[in-house]
Amino acid sequence: MNYSGGITFIMPNFAPMEKQTPTILVVNDDGITAPGIKVLLETMQQLGRVVVVAPDSPQSGMGHAITIGKPLRLDAVDLYEGVEMYKCSGTPVDCVKLAVNRIFKGSKPDLCVSGINHGLNNSINVLYSGTMSAAVEGAIEGIPSIGFSLDDYTQQANFEPCAKYVKAIATQVLEHGLPASTLLNVNFPKTADLNGIKICRQANGKWAEEFDERMDPHQRPYYWLTGEFQLNDQGEDTDVWALEHDYVSVVPVQFDMTAHHAISILNSWKF
Amino acid sequence: MNYSGGITFIMPNFAPMEKQTPTILVVNDDGITAPGIKVLLETMQQLGRVVVVAPDSPQSGMGHAITIGKPLRLDAVDLYEGVEMYKCSGTPVDCVKLAVNRIFKGSKPDLCVSGINHGLNNSINVLYSGTMSAAVEGAIEGIPSIGFSLDDYTQQANFEPCAKYVKAIATQVLEHGLPASTLLNVNFPKTADLNGIKICRQANGKWAEEFDERMDPHQRPYYWLTGEFQLNDQGEDTDVWALEHDYVSVVPVQFDMTAHHAISILNSWKF
Repeated sequence: MNYSGGITFIMPNFAPMEKQTPTILVVNDDGITAPGIKVLLETMQQLGRVVVVAPDSPQSGMGHAITIGKPLRLDAVDLYEGVEMYKCSGTPVDCVKLAVNRIFKGSKPDLCVSGINHGLNNSINVLYSGTMSAAVEGAIEGIPSIGFSLDDYTQQANFEPCAKYVKAIATQVLEHGLPASTLLNVNFPKTADLNGIKICRQANGKWAEEFDERMDPHQRPYYWLTGEFQLNDQGEDTDVWALEHDYVSVVPVQFDMTAHHAISILNSWKF
Repeated sequence: MNYSGGITFIMPNFAPMEKQTPTILVVNDDGITAPGIKVLLETMQQLGRVVVVAPDSPQSGMGHAITIGKPLRLDAVDLYEGVEMYKCSGTPVDCVKLAVNRIFKGSKPDLCVSGINHGLNNSINVLYSGTMSAAVEGAIEGIPSIGFSLDDYTQQANFEPCAKYVKAIATQVLEHGLPASTLLNVNFPKTADLNGIKICRQANGKWAEEFDERMDPHQRPYYWLTGEFQLNDQGEDTDVWALEHDYVSVVPVQFDMTAHHAISILNSWKF
């Protein structure tokens, strides 16, 4: 099979939107009361009918965790006038699964957007991020999906400069669909003076951990996870580079984690 | 840059082992008392010095979750004679981070093995699995890493047929290293009559969820996550196919989630 031919990628997996109001699932990992999800749902209301399903508490760093060993709660809440909203006791991925199975019940939404996250999810953070994992789960469910994140952890983060890009990117995805089994990871630098959009690859980087060791009142040690991001990539086509140069970074993400290039090497090994 | 040339992949990221006793980090997600980790650590003792860092409670389905909002405990335990072991209050990924930062303190282990998981982690399960995420974290830390899983959820699972393959695969990885930024996902079918090893790609599949809705004594609903695996892939080069035919499946895994093939499509969009 010839994977380098263009035909696979010109044919989108998801049919372009009919000329009718799309339904948009909004999720996040910072919790249903976070300012970032309010900006996101308000922006999506300009594009279609919005349904919000978000965690009832902060779920940052939950990655692709799902809740197996205990039951989940899912309750309607009336937080913003006229918006269909549900809070969920589980992880961001649980939210997507519950939305698809219990709220949409088979009639899938036309778009799944996650965020806007308080804090970047570029480079390796795509793996740790509940925001991005919710979008990945949306894509696994066959829904065109996008995760949005801003380089500002605070509750006072200014999401206003992001809004027009969020709308533009979501509009394009509704119009074109996305290539099969892919989603988008969109990150915003912390500036009001954005230079536009760059399509990027995930930068090669990692967290250099430094656990902060403390003693509890009973003289038993405990540890807080801290660390510094370590960039191991000088490429000018990465999300880190784009963000450093005040661009909005857009990385297409896939959930096939196979290292296809390594298969032939392993086949040469003698087990 | 020409990514199709062989040179990148012939040069391993990790230098082949010197002829001295390797140090092997053993982790899992089923918890430090699980039978699967006992088989794994006993097998690794035949190859080098073993250090075990595992969750103090079951952490299945935790994916790549890390613990940010609360502190972690890490305590030495004396479970099996002569084995250096620590239990950790966090996720499987936390275990790897704590091992690297607090136990090895910069002198990295030569190998990180995770499992043997009670239950398969083939296909899309690589994303949900704490076992595999621990191995992914090992690879991010620059340690040659392997996750092992058996198609048997029970505490009575028979890991004996796996042991010689676990040893053979770990021996090959210690000898050859692994290609840059890759790790191995090894799954065993539930049979004593194994046909050998197949190098595979991750099968395209997903879980079709079916939440089991119940009422609590206060007449409030709650939901249990259940579901059926749905295979959307007829390939004979997948892990699902290999396992169905009684092979040990070995999938090389990468943590660059960029859908590189989609970059040119997105560049043609008008934002």
